[in-house]
Amino acid sequence: MTDATTDPLVVFTPSGKRGRVARGTPVLAAARKLGVDLDSVCGGRGICSKCQVAPAYGDFAKHGVHAGADALSEWNAVEERYDRIRGLPKGRRLGCQAQIQGDIVIDVPPESQVHKQVVRKAATMRDIAMNPATRLVLVEVEEPDMHVPSGDFERLARALKEQWQVEGVTADLSLLARLQPVLRKGSWQVTVALYHDHTGASPRIVEIWPGLQEGPLYGLAIDLGSTTIAAHLTDLATGAVTASAGAMNPQIRFGEDLMSRVSYAMMNPGGDAEMTAAVREAIGQLAGKLAAEAGIEAERIVETVFVCNPVMHHLLLGFDPVELGQAPFALVTSNAITLAASDLGLRGLNPRARIYVLPCIAGHVGADAAAVALSEQPGRSQDLVLVVDVGTNAEILLGDTSRVLACSSPTGPAFEGAQISSGQRAAPGAIERIEIDPATKEPRFRVIGVDLWSDEDGFTEAAGKTGITGICGSGIIEAVAEMRMAGLLDGSGLIGSAAQTGTPRCIPDGRTQAYVIWDGTEAGGPLISVTQGDIRAIQLAKSALYAGARLLMDERNVDKVDRVVLAGAFGAHISPKHAMVLGMIPDVPLDKVTSAGNAAGTGARIALCNIDARAEIEATVRQITKVETAIEPKFQDHFVAANAIPHKTDPFPELSKIVSLPDVSFNTHGSGEDGSGRRRRRRS
Amino acid sequence: MTDATTDPLVVFTPSGKRGRVARGTPVLAAARKLGVDLDSVCGGRGICSKCQVAPAYGDFAKHGVHAGADALSEWNAVEERYDRIRGLPKGRRLGCQAQIQGDIVIDVPPESQVHKQVVRKAATMRDIAMNPATRLVLVEVEEPDMHVPSGDFERLARALKEQWQVEGVTADLSLLARLQPVLRKGSWQVTVALYHDHTGASPRIVEIWPGLQEGPLYGLAIDLGSTTIAAHLTDLATGAVTASAGAMNPQIRFGEDLMSRVSYAMMNPGGDAEMTAAVREAIGQLAGKLAAEAGIEAERIVETVFVCNPVMHHLLLGFDPVELGQAPFALVTSNAITLAASDLGLRGLNPRARIYVLPCIAGHVGADAAAVALSEQPGRSQDLVLVVDVGTNAEILLGDTSRVLACSSPTGPAFEGAQISSGQRAAPGAIERIEIDPATKEPRFRVIGVDLWSDEDGFTEAAGKTGITGICGSGIIEAVAEMRMAGLLDGSGLIGSAAQTGTPRCIPDGRTQAYVIWDGTEAGGPLISVTQGDIRAIQLAKSALYAGARLLMDERNVDKVDRVVLAGAFGAHISPKHAMVLGMIPDVPLDKVTSAGNAAGTGARIALCNIDARAEIEATVRQITKVETAIEPKFQDHFVAANAIPHKTDPFPELSKIVSLPDVSFNTHGSGEDGSGRRRRRRS
Repeated sequence: MTDATTDPLVVFTPSGKRGRVARGTPVLAAARKLGVDLDSVCGGRGICSKCQVAPAYGDFAKHGVHAGADALSEWNAVEERYDRIRGLPKGRRLGCQAQIQGDIVIDVPPESQVHKQVVRKAATMRDIAMNPATRLVLVEVEEPDMHVPSGDFERLARALKEQWQVEGVTADLSLLARLQPVLRKGSWQVTVALYHDHTGASPRIVEIWPGLQEGPLYGLAIDLGSTTIAAHLTDLATGAVTASAGAMNPQIRFGEDLMSRVSYAMMNPGGDAEMTAAVREAIGQLAGKLAAEAGIEAERIVETVFVCNPVMHHLLLGFDPVELGQAPFALVTSNAITLAASDLGLRGLNPRARIYVLPCIAGHVGADAAAVALSEQPGRSQDLVLVVDVGTNAEILLGDTSRVLACSSPTGPAFEGAQISSGQRAAPGAIERIEIDPATKEPRFRVIGVDLWSDEDGFTEAAGKTGITGICGSGIIEAVAEMRMAGLLDGSGLIGSAAQTGTPRCIPDGRTQAYVIWDGTEAGGPLISVTQGDIRAIQLAKSALYAGARLLMDERNVDKVDRVVLAGAFGAHISPKHAMVLGMIPDVPLDKVTSAGNAAGTGARIALCNIDARAEIEATVRQITKVETAIEPKFQDHFVAANAIPHKTDPFPELSKIVSLPDVSFNTHGSGEDGSGRRRRRRS
Repeated sequence: MTDATTDPLVVFTPSGKRGRVARGTPVLAAARKLGVDLDSVCGGRGICSKCQVAPAYGDFAKHGVHAGADALSEWNAVEERYDRIRGLPKGRRLGCQAQIQGDIVIDVPPESQVHKQVVRKAATMRDIAMNPATRLVLVEVEEPDMHVPSGDFERLARALKEQWQVEGVTADLSLLARLQPVLRKGSWQVTVALYHDHTGASPRIVEIWPGLQEGPLYGLAIDLGSTTIAAHLTDLATGAVTASAGAMNPQIRFGEDLMSRVSYAMMNPGGDAEMTAAVREAIGQLAGKLAAEAGIEAERIVETVFVCNPVMHHLLLGFDPVELGQAPFALVTSNAITLAASDLGLRGLNPRARIYVLPCIAGHVGADAAAVALSEQPGRSQDLVLVVDVGTNAEILLGDTSRVLACSSPTGPAFEGAQISSGQRAAPGAIERIEIDPATKEPRFRVIGVDLWSDEDGFTEAAGKTGITGICGSGIIEAVAEMRMAGLLDGSGLIGSAAQTGTPRCIPDGRTQAYVIWDGTEAGGPLISVTQGDIRAIQLAKSALYAGARLLMDERNVDKVDRVVLAGAFGAHISPKHAMVLGMIPDVPLDKVTSAGNAAGTGARIALCNIDARAEIEATVRQITKVETAIEPKFQDHFVAANAIPHKTDPFPELSKIVSLPDVSFNTHGSGEDGSGRRRRRRS
C-alpha cells in the first residue's frame, strides 16, 4: 500500500532500477534521477513522445509494490492533445507529463530506450548496443536583445548547456551560415543534430532544423574494398539497416589489385589524386542511391564510418600510397581519423556529416582488419580462433584472450570472381553453388536469384529470367573443390583430359584442359567453364591465404587451431567443406568452421552505432601483434608448400573424415605443365 | 671567487634571473631551468644559432659575481664549425654548446629572446610584446620499423612531445598528404610550423619543411574596412612589418555604405555570396601582392588576423548580413573565430594558415572596435578618454578603469573623401591640408606627395608630377573648418555668395554656392571646389559622430571628457583644431587631443603577435557596455542638435581659446536652404 507519510516507491522495468521520489515527480524526471534509460528529444515538453512508458497497476510481489489506479496523475491536456493529433498507444503515458502519486511499476518499452539493444537483420544475427555519436535534441533559444547583445550561436550554445547539459559546442562556418533563418523559421525552437564522440573533442552541431524534427538520423557504414564498395544506410536511433547497396570500386581501371594501384600512383604523377577522385565520386553516388532508395534527404545522413585496407585508406584520404608499396610499408597515419564529409568532398550526404575511419593495424593490415577484430573479438575468445576475412586481400587474425596476432595476405581478386575466365560478381545469374557427381562427372548448380538446382523441374524456366551469366567467388571455390573430389583434377591442380577423366565435359583449351559447367552458346549465351588458368588463380589465392594463417600459427607456436571463422563479403557463402578440400584453411572439425558474414562491414556498423566500440577498437589495435608477411621468408615457404589441393605441409585428418580425395595424377601427359603448377620448358 | 665545492652561480641579464646549476650545464639548459627567455629552433643541436648569448667576465658587484675567463667551457667543434660556415659575432657563444663551469653573468641579446619587445616603425610608436601562436621547431623523427608498425604522423607527434614537450598535435588532411615525402627528403629531420593558441585547442602543424628552416614565418594583420582593406605583412618572430598594402574594398560596387550592402543582400538572392566572393578575392590578391613585394613564398604566411565591422565580418565569413540591417541587429556569432585560410577559400597565403577574427562587441560594434579597445586600452585609462575611430562607420569608445562604453555611428564615407564632389582617396595629388586667409579669403594648400605649400616657390613644378586631383578626407575636414573660420560659411553651414563674402572664389552652383580651391581647367585639370552638398555631407557625418559620443557621455552621466584619441586610417592626419571647429568631437583642451593612427590596424597587429592579447580582448569585450545608437531616441536629438558648426548643444569654451568664429549668417538670402540644412519648400 502507498504510505502517504513516505515518498512513493517507483520500480522501472526491464532495468529493475528503483527508488523513492517526491510525490508529483514526472516519470521522466524520476527516470533521470534513478539513472533509467528513458529517451526524450524535446526535453520534456510533451511534443516528441519519445518518453512513452507503460505503467502497470496491481500487486507485484517480486518488486514489493502494490500499485493503485491512482499511482499516476490523471491524463493531462498535453497527453490528450497528443493522443488526439497523433495517437498514443493504449496503456501508454507520456513520461514527461505523468506524475508519480504512489508506488508503481513502470515499464520502459524498447523504443523508448536510448541505448537500445537491437537485433540485426543482416547475415549474422548479433546484438548491437546503441550509443551513437549523433543524436537529435530540441532546444528553445532565447531571442536576441539588442540591449544585451550576443550572437545567435552563443545563445544557442547557452540553450544546449542549460537544457541538455552539453557544454562548449562548436559548429562549422557552413552551419553558422544557416543558423539565423532556421532559428527565425522555428520561432526560436530548433532541433539540432548534435555530434559528440569518444575523443574528448568539443560537441559539434552537424545540422539544424526549425521546430521539432522527429525523423531519424542516418549513418553510412562503408566497407571500402579493393574490388567492391558496400554501404549500409543505418538508422542511428535503432541501428536498423534501412537500405544496403554495393558498387564496383572504380579504381579497378587503374589496377586490379592493391600493388598495381600503388604502381599506378608511382608511375603516373597525379595518379593517386585520380584514384582518390574516382573512389570519392563512387562513394558519393552510392550515398545518393541509398538516400533515394530510402526516400530520405541527403542532409539526414550525418555520419559515415569507413573500414578499408591501408591502400584504400590512403587513397580515400588523399594520401599517396607509394610508401605502402615498399618496405618498411610506412603509413601516413595509423590512428583513427575523424573529419567532415566536406573534407573529402563527398557528395550525397550532409556536407557536415562526421566521418570516422577506423585505425590501421599496420602498413599491410588495415582498418578492415581492425573492424573484423571489433566484430569477431578474437581477443575475448577462450579457445584459439583463426578469423579469415576473404577479399582481394585477406585479413587474418589469430588469437585468444592471451594474445592476438594479425597479418594480411595478398590473395588477389580470384576469390571475388575476378581474373577467372567465367568469373563475375555475386549478382543474379551467377553460379554460386555447384555439385559434381563423382560417377557421371555431371554438374548440377544453383544461380543467384533462382531457388531451384539446375537439375530440378522448372529450373530452365526460372533461370530464363536471370540468365546464367558466370561464376561468382563462392561458385568457383566449390567448382574447384568438386572437380578435385570428382577426380577431374589431380592433387597438383591439373585438369584431366576427356580421355583421362572419361567425360566429354573436359575439353582442350589451348595446351591445357577446361571443364564445361554450362554451355549456353546455342541460345546465344556464354560457355561457362573452369580453365586451367582459373585453377592456377585459385591455387595462388588459397596458397597465399593458407600461408598467412600458417605464419601466424608459427608465431603462436601451434600446429592447429581450435576453430575457424570465415568472414568477408562472400564468407557467408563459402561452404566450409569446400574451403577445406581446397586447403584454404587449416584442418579443423567441420563443425568448428563458422561464417561471420561480412565481419568488416559488421565492425563498421558497430563503430557507427556505438562510440564506446570506437574507443575499444582504438585500444585493441594498439595491443594486436602485427606480422608482416611481405618480408617473412617463411611466408614464401608456406606459400609454395600450400600449392597442392590439398597440400602436403599439413595432415588433414579432419578433412579425411568427411571426404575422400581420389588419388589421380594427370601430370605425365603432355599438358605443358608439371605438377607444381609451373609451365615446363618445352623440349625442342 | 668560484668555489669548487658549490655549484656555479649564473645570472642572466637583462632579466636578472639567477640560480645555481650543476657544473657542465649548457647555458640553454640553465636558461630553461631558471625560466629565462632564450630562443632555440633546433632544440639544442647547435645548428639554428637562435640561442646566441654574450657571456661577460670580470667583477660584477651588483650581481655578487666574479666571472673568471674559465667560467664557460672552451669553444667546441660545433661552435667552430658554425663560426666557420656562418660566422658567430664576436663575443657570442652558442647557448646550447657553451657549458657553465663557474660563476658567470650571461647577457641574452634581444634577438635571442622569444618574447621580444619590439618597437613598431608605424605611425604610432609602441612596444608590442611578442608571443605569437605559430613558431618554427626542428625535430628528429624516428624512422619507420616494420616490426613495430606506426604511422609517420604518430612518430612525428611523438618526436614533438619528446623533443619539444608539445602534446597531442593535430594536422589537416592536406598536411598529412605532404608528410611522407618531406620526412624522407629531410632524412627524418624536419622543421615544423607549429600553431598553438590561447583557446586550449590542440596544437596544430600548419606547415612542414625538410631539414632546418630558419627563414621567418609571416602573418597578415588585416583591417577590413567598408571602403578600404589595409594589410600588413608581419614577421612573426620580431613583429616587424615587412610590407604593407591597401586596396579598395570591391564590395563598393554593391553599395557604398554598410546599409546599402545589407540592402543589396536583401534584394538580390545570392547577393551576400557575391559580396563574400568579391572581398575574399581582393584579400587573396592583397596577400599575393605583399608576398611578391617581400619576395617570400605564399606558404610562409601562416597566420592572418582580421578586424572589421559586423557587416564586413559577416560578409567575410560567408554569413548573410540581413539581420544586421534591422533591430535587434543579431549577429550570427559574436565570439572570436579561429579557422583555416582554406575554410574561407583565401588564396595568396598558406591554405592551412590559421585565421583569427577578433570578437564583435555588438551588432553595430564590431571586431574593429574590439581592436581599437585592444590598441588604446580605454579600460586602463585613469582619466575619462573618448576614443573615436573615424572611417565609413565611426567606432566610439568612452571609458576609464571603472567602465568602458562602446557604440558605432553611421558617419558614411564623407570623411574618407567619398560622396564629396571633388573627393578622392588619400593618394598622391590629393589636397590634404588647407588654410584660408580670413582677410583675403585666399586658400593655400598642400597635396600628398609634395612637400611644399601651394604658395611656396617651386610648388607648381613639384605638383606637376602628381597633379592636383581632388581633396581627401583630412583635406575636406580642414577646408570646411577653414571656410567657417574665414567667414565663408555661417554657423548653419551655408556658403555665402561672392557678394556676401567679398571673394570671387565663391561661385554660384545651381541654387547654392561653392568655394573654389583650385581651378585647373585651363591646363585640362579639374576644378576643385567645396559645394554646399559637400558641406551638408560633412555636417551629416560629423553630427553622427558627435551624437554617438554624446550618447556615451549621457550613459556615463558626464558633460565633458578628459581627453580625446583620434584613430582611424586617416585619424593621424586630422588636425585636432579643425576637428573641434567642425564640432566633430567634444570640447577639450587642444593638447588633450591625440592621434592613435590606425588603432584598429594596430590592434590587429597586436593580436597577430601575441596570443595573450587575444585572450585579453576576448575577456575585455565581454565587459564593455554596448550602446545601440540606431534605436536610441536621444541619438536623433543629439544628431539634429549637432548640425551647426559648431553646434549649439554644448558650449565650446576650449575652442574659443584658440579660434574665434565669425558671427556671419547667410540664411536670409535666397539660397534655397534655411539654416537647419534642410531645403525649404519653395514658395510659389
